[in-house]
Amino acid sequence: MTKLWGGRFGEGLDPFMASFNASIGFDARLWKADIKGSRAYATALCDAGILTVDEKDQIIQGLDRIFSEWTAGDFQLDPADEDIHTAIERRLHELIGPIAGKLHTGRSRNDQVATDLRLFLLETCDNLGNLINDLQLTFIQSAEQHIDLIMPGYTHLQPAQPVRFSHWLMSYFWMLQRDWSRMNDMKQRISVLPLGSGVLAGTPFTIDRFALAEQLGFRQISENSLDGVSDRDFVAEFLFWAAMVGIHLSRLSEDIILFSNPNLGFISLSDAFSTGSSLMPQKKNPDSFELARGKSGRLTGNLVSLLVTLKGLPSTYNKDLQEDKEPLFDTIDTLSVMLPVIQGALQSMIAHGDAMEAALNDFMLATDLADWLVQQGIPFRKSHSIVGQVVRAAEQRRCGLRDLSLVDLQAIHPAFEQDALTVWDFDRSVEQRSAPGGTARQAVAEQISRARALMGDDH
Amino acid sequence: MTKLWGGRFGEGLDPFMASFNASIGFDARLWKADIKGSRAYATALCDAGILTVDEKDQIIQGLDRIFSEWTAGDFQLDPADEDIHTAIERRLHELIGPIAGKLHTGRSRNDQVATDLRLFLLETCDNLGNLINDLQLTFIQSAEQHIDLIMPGYTHLQPAQPVRFSHWLMSYFWMLQRDWSRMNDMKQRISVLPLGSGVLAGTPFTIDRFALAEQLGFRQISENSLDGVSDRDFVAEFLFWAAMVGIHLSRLSEDIILFSNPNLGFISLSDAFSTGSSLMPQKKNPDSFELARGKSGRLTGNLVSLLVTLKGLPSTYNKDLQEDKEPLFDTIDTLSVMLPVIQGALQSMIAHGDAMEAALNDFMLATDLADWLVQQGIPFRKSHSIVGQVVRAAEQRRCGLRDLSLVDLQAIHPAFEQDALTVWDFDRSVEQRSAPGGTARQAVAEQISRARALMGDDH
Amino acid sequence: MTKLWGGRFGEGLDPFMASFNASIGFDARLWKADIKGSRAYATALCDAGILTVDEKDQIIQGLDRIFSEWTAGDFQLDPADEDIHTAIERRLHELIGPIAGKLHTGRSRNDQVATDLRLFLLETCDNLGNLINDLQLTFIQSAEQHIDLIMPGYTHLQPAQPVRFSHWLMSYFWMLQRDWSRMNDMKQRISVLPLGSGVLAGTPFTIDRFALAEQLGFRQISENSLDGVSDRDFVAEFLFWAAMVGIHLSRLSEDIILFSNPNLGFISLSDAFSTGSSLMPQKKNPDSFELARGKSGRLTGNLVSLLVTLKGLPSTYNKDLQEDKEPLFDTIDTLSVMLPVIQGALQSMIAHGDAMEAALNDFMLATDLADWLVQQGIPFRKSHSIVGQVVRAAEQRRCGLRDLSLVDLQAIHPAFEQDALTVWDFDRSVEQRSAPGGTARQAVAEQISRARALMGDDH
Amino acid sequence: MTKLWGGRFGEGLDPFMASFNASIGFDARLWKADIKGSRAYATALCDAGILTVDEKDQIIQGLDRIFSEWTAGDFQLDPADEDIHTAIERRLHELIGPIAGKLHTGRSRNDQVATDLRLFLLETCDNLGNLINDLQLTFIQSAEQHIDLIMPGYTHLQPAQPVRFSHWLMSYFWMLQRDWSRMNDMKQRISVLPLGSGVLAGTPFTIDRFALAEQLGFRQISENSLDGVSDRDFVAEFLFWAAMVGIHLSRLSEDIILFSNPNLGFISLSDAFSTGSSLMPQKKNPDSFELARGKSGRLTGNLVSLLVTLKGLPSTYNKDLQEDKEPLFDTIDTLSVMLPVIQGALQSMIAHGDAMEAALNDFMLATDLADWLVQQGIPFRKSHSIVGQVVRAAEQRRCGLRDLSLVDLQAIHPAFEQDALTVWDFDRSVEQRSAPGGTARQAVAEQISRARALMGDDH
Repeated sequence: MTKLWGGRFGEGLDPFMASFNASIGFDARLWKADIKGSRAYATALCDAGILTVDEKDQIIQGLDRIFSEWTAGDFQLDPADEDIHTAIERRLHELIGPIAGKLHTGRSRNDQVATDLRLFLLETCDNLGNLINDLQLTFIQSAEQHIDLIMPGYTHLQPAQPVRFSHWLMSYFWMLQRDWSRMNDMKQRISVLPLGSGVLAGTPFTIDRFALAEQLGFRQISENSLDGVSDRDFVAEFLFWAAMVGIHLSRLSEDIILFSNPNLGFISLSDAFSTGSSLMPQKKNPDSFELARGKSGRLTGNLVSLLVTLKGLPSTYNKDLQEDKEPLFDTIDTLSVMLPVIQGALQSMIAHGDAMEAALNDFMLATDLADWLVQQGIPFRKSHSIVGQVVRAAEQRRCGLRDLSLVDLQAIHPAFEQDALTVWDFDRSVEQRSAPGGTARQAVAEQISRARALMGDDH
Repeated sequence: MTKLWGGRFGEGLDPFMASFNASIGFDARLWKADIKGSRAYATALCDAGILTVDEKDQIIQGLDRIFSEWTAGDFQLDPADEDIHTAIERRLHELIGPIAGKLHTGRSRNDQVATDLRLFLLETCDNLGNLINDLQLTFIQSAEQHIDLIMPGYTHLQPAQPVRFSHWLMSYFWMLQRDWSRMNDMKQRISVLPLGSGVLAGTPFTIDRFALAEQLGFRQISENSLDGVSDRDFVAEFLFWAAMVGIHLSRLSEDIILFSNPNLGFISLSDAFSTGSSLMPQKKNPDSFELARGKSGRLTGNLVSLLVTLKGLPSTYNKDLQEDKEPLFDTIDTLSVMLPVIQGALQSMIAHGDAMEAALNDFMLATDLADWLVQQGIPFRKSHSIVGQVVRAAEQRRCGLRDLSLVDLQAIHPAFEQDALTVWDFDRSVEQRSAPGGTARQAVAEQISRARALMGDDH
Repeated sequence: MTKLWGGRFGEGLDPFMASFNASIGFDARLWKADIKGSRAYATALCDAGILTVDEKDQIIQGLDRIFSEWTAGDFQLDPADEDIHTAIERRLHELIGPIAGKLHTGRSRNDQVATDLRLFLLETCDNLGNLINDLQLTFIQSAEQHIDLIMPGYTHLQPAQPVRFSHWLMSYFWMLQRDWSRMNDMKQRISVLPLGSGVLAGTPFTIDRFALAEQLGFRQISENSLDGVSDRDFVAEFLFWAAMVGIHLSRLSEDIILFSNPNLGFISLSDAFSTGSSLMPQKKNPDSFELARGKSGRLTGNLVSLLVTLKGLPSTYNKDLQEDKEPLFDTIDTLSVMLPVIQGALQSMIAHGDAMEAALNDFMLATDLADWLVQQGIPFRKSHSIVGQVVRAAEQRRCGLRDLSLVDLQAIHPAFEQDALTVWDFDRSVEQRSAPGGTARQAVAEQISRARALMGDDH
Repeated sequence: MTKLWGGRFGEGLDPFMASFNASIGFDARLWKADIKGSRAYATALCDAGILTVDEKDQIIQGLDRIFSEWTAGDFQLDPADEDIHTAIERRLHELIGPIAGKLHTGRSRNDQVATDLRLFLLETCDNLGNLINDLQLTFIQSAEQHIDLIMPGYTHLQPAQPVRFSHWLMSYFWMLQRDWSRMNDMKQRISVLPLGSGVLAGTPFTIDRFALAEQLGFRQISENSLDGVSDRDFVAEFLFWAAMVGIHLSRLSEDIILFSNPNLGFISLSDAFSTGSSLMPQKKNPDSFELARGKSGRLTGNLVSLLVTLKGLPSTYNKDLQEDKEPLFDTIDTLSVMLPVIQGALQSMIAHGDAMEAALNDFMLATDLADWLVQQGIPFRKSHSIVGQVVRAAEQRRCGLRDLSLVDLQAIHPAFEQDALTVWDFDRSVEQRSAPGGTARQAVAEQISRARALMGDDH
């Protein structure tokens, strides 16, 4: 037996075409899902009266043996195996003879591969979910550890207001929490059984699709066979999910790379997550984060790949759909290394509170001065304008804001009093922002505590 | 008052820069959300003791007047209004004087615009959800109407097996149902209040963010102010959502365009959704579906736009984020016209059962013959091979499969009996696929009925 | 007259469909190209004997009058004008009567719009080329002005080696020079006349296409009518061209934004290209460059839009192609403002040599020390390793490299001599790199001089 | 020796990080370019007095031996080889000892990898250029062979006008000719030598970069070292180039897939480029073209990958740039198989002139009737409208256009005469379109002849 479909064909396949057509080079990794699906399908065929119990047992034993061969790394691919389904059926035939040929009854590779891919992706989601989880925990732990540190908060990369370093760390926890939430939602749509859709029109055998779904752990069955064999929304949704994770990590990486520039110097990476230069002996480069930032490119590119492939396809199965797997696998492999690297790099990173403190300056307290005026009843828009003049005055004198005396301030506006000078205190500024979500110590502590609770709850 | 931020600036803005910087040209459509947010914020400021009840009332009356001006189309933009927030605050100042300046207390445009955009998008989701709904209903109704028609089912655009036209119609219902499901999930993540995040560090005033969220209809508040002002995940998720809708409609369009080619001729579009040629008097073109197919490009492009913009941004607010709006608005506008056009075109489309029937041929029943052999106990893989030989025999004789006599068949394999010839029946073939999700009449009827139930339930 | 194609149609167009179908909202800007093309076509029809000289003159006078109306802003669109071609032909009919109906002889909107778009884009390229030119000149002038300044050169955003600020400026000149080169090449492929391709099969009239091409300034004619009406490669190539410009400007913007962070402080933007904060009185934000960086998103998105639209289209004209214009126009508009803004911001930017100097440190001279060892005959790989130990020694003592005495160095390797200490000199380091393309003063001066020569030559 | 940069580092690399960081898994294929570059660089170092002639000879002999090892498949990678440069230098050190350490003098991996990649890509362009060439020749040969066949020309996938099948074939020749033209232009920008840029600031040694460029076959040297080490425009341009090729082939594939649907049946693919179904014995699927169409997705995705990676990078080298290679290599590998598969499938494809003829119908001659009226002096717009009424009349009677008698026609418009009935002739229609680029036999023959000339000239 060579091809699963050779019966009516006169010539052999052109060798270039054979290699163009074959997917075994990348779909072999679906072996576990393929065997799992076939085991369940054998049972269903038996329940439907297509297989005797004995035939079913032979098939299952054969499949189990193939499973062991794959596990042990002993499975031998044949040059004619065009895909993982062919390879496993070919091997089953070698092991148990023609009965193997009954397994494909009412099943096409169209519903088979869709089932395999969903089984595989559900398991992948669990694995990636754990990695996301671990990374979230790292942010929590680091935030707990560094809750005392105050750093410049930037907008537009210009100094804005002082914030806790832990608050910055936690901002990434919440991005990942959204990724987690999106993954949970997505899993509902992955967990749909296409098996029983046949090639496109459904199955003429009395396969109990609900029992099959239950056995394989799917939450529901696909409701329309034409859609069942060609739905790749779940792959696209996964690729988008991963692209968003990539965007989040690209932003984290950008921050870390900036913070480790010596003119800021807020953090140092450990040598274990940095590399040097082949030319410059002094270099220590944040390669881990640069690669993570760079890899947001391929994660986005993989999403685009699939969307372009799907665009304008006629309904049901078209061979174009074979192009769903490589971007998917590349995205999975990318995240599977990227997440632990980021986690390790964060865990071993050292925060430099002194450098953060040195980067704070009074101008970051200008809003606090404006808020002080608001407390005196001056409309904010007016107080913003007054403090704007204060800032200009300091700039013109090339001094800090706190170097202006009360008299200087009163020359700009008479509402200033001695008490206004209490605003020149970074701790005070941070502690003022105590509403939920703010950067005050108590608000951050509560934020961490909610985060921990979420990790317990739904993770 | 010109800019909201001019206090410390010496020179005016370069005119090119002013136009580059201004967003009023596209963010004016957020006026309703902006006013709604400001109304709620005025109440929150009053509760926090920043505004007296009288001040709050003046502000709210002023905002209500501005609302009326927008509604009536009377609102006058000023050349110096750089964005919708500036425009409305400027007008409020004109209407009620310096008290207007109190409204921005503790609020920045960063948390304001994020709030506006979420309010706007929640309303948009409701509108688009209705359009999706309507289109789903059209598929259901058309499927009910045409349940008798049998057409060639294609895979690889080659004849595969006969299927009901209604089954094909319903396949698009389920794609849209996934879009609906994704939208529902997404709304949870849109419905998060950023207001109270200040510029990035939180608010120093005792704003009750939970009350604000409740008043504005948000399900939860953002948990971290740094993240709150720069989270655009919800926009990216929406753009992905829309791109998937676009991909679905591109596949539908491809089918329809093919089906209306006269060599297939399965359907005709009404003149109301077709156009002609400026040169060829006979032409009637399916422009509605071609445009829909083509517009999947911009829907995907808009998604890419935002992902590229977000990639590698330092955390918190950066001006780059202003680029979130135009792709979003373009996507919304595209879907808002595309969905009703598709719906109208489908409703007015005529199905030609005779052309569908004419396109059926016996070769599409080859699998039925193989299945018949399976029923005689021949393993499917063997029966597939036998029928492959039957097909070749017919091709060599240039005849249809049913033109082969029983003797011819038995010459290929002795298991063939008279009963085998009953498979040459398209109705029988379709009715065989009666498992859930299949194309048999009963299976399609149940599918429609589940679809109707879903429309009632969660829509 | 309403539509150009209504003859055989029974019903009117659905109103939603009419708005979905109409392109007048965006293709009106092709008016000048459309009139220009029609003027030339009238001449060609006259030469072919389709129009009398008098008819031709009437048509051209009519077109000239329409040109004046557009120029004066007086042209009145009719609600039924679905595109610019319809609008102009409708108006021509109003002005000169039924003879107007002869202009479309042998021409379809397919070859007409392709011609218009190419004419329009050729003119656009000239405009954008001038803007690129101006920006290049700004880099040259700024480099000339600041040739003395030495700044830290970064790789991986970590200090690497000192470089001239002017060398950094010139690096962007060369990126733009590649953009310029790509544009020149691209223009060859834009400058191809499709007119005379008819709707898809060519023209049955004796139109002299070569004469038409010459009259309209095209370098060649399209060689195949099927391809001629559906070739949008030139739009895709333009969109890629613009996306690359966007990527270059995004990198420039990233640098500028970093350099204007006060912890680096290498440059200050003028107020004319910065904005402030509605909440924080002290802020001065580099919005011009943030927007430029952000807009690389839409430039890339527009490219993707068109590629997705084109993907998988059947050959010749399909209505999907109408989707070529909006991404094109958006890209043109984006660059047309972005380039002058960047130029203005660069021209008015102030460079702070003192801050650059303050950011230099001895570790950036480590390679120079290794190179010194190489001069003593020590293989580079060995000298790199020796200097690695020198760096560690300094780090352990928390001192600069120059704080290590000769004795300290000799303790690490005996090859060090007094002369080695001459490497602690940033000027010397920069001046060492004097090979072409290097950062020595003379090399930069020659670079600038070659750049100026190029500006003269091929620009 | 393990890393090229280990000198100052205290800890080893985290194992996850090591695998994240390593590029040897994919950059090993640059071995030939790397050795070629190093050979030339050894000569340059010798000319600069850094190497003695004897040292240079040792290095070159060592490199030649390594070249032989790679050629023979004997080169042994070491687990510590992080990239191809490290691997080759490590091996050189094993072969010739410490002198190997002199080869990296003044060179960094930054300028080295940029040089390697350009050398590699220039060779790749030659290979792909040949494949493009071969495919173009196939179109020419097929067009010559089938010049007699007339098929329906479609616009909007609706019958438009009859065209020669050979004209359709040639339309793809011209798309590929543009790809060829773009490649030629692109090669100018690839052929630029970055070597001598050092890590970013240039080289302090007296390397003759022009001689290096000449020896390596580059047309020019990079003019700015900062740009030289980080310019990846040429990779992006290549990826765009390949994406356009992909778009062209996706359109071709769409046509072929449609044409091989049995309801059109214009062509049949050979079995050597088709596959069957695992379930349906009768199936013969155009997998070769479906895969080609689908792979336009990854070609576009790879382009997006790199653009996203490049977006917003600070200038000079950042580790993100390591992400340039995998999309590039995937794109090259994709095209390298796709082009010969398409070519083989086209060569072995059978054209069915009878099916094409059967698909022609009189309505496709409506424009000819309108053109006949134009010849009688009726303005085209009027004649278009008259023929629209003719079409409606035929549709209402459910007959063909030629079934209308002269009397019927005259009832619609009196200008019709007996001679008008000569338009009902597909050959005549095709032959009318004889202007350059049209579908008349002579015009197609001239087109083919120009194509052949181009193949000789500049290919």
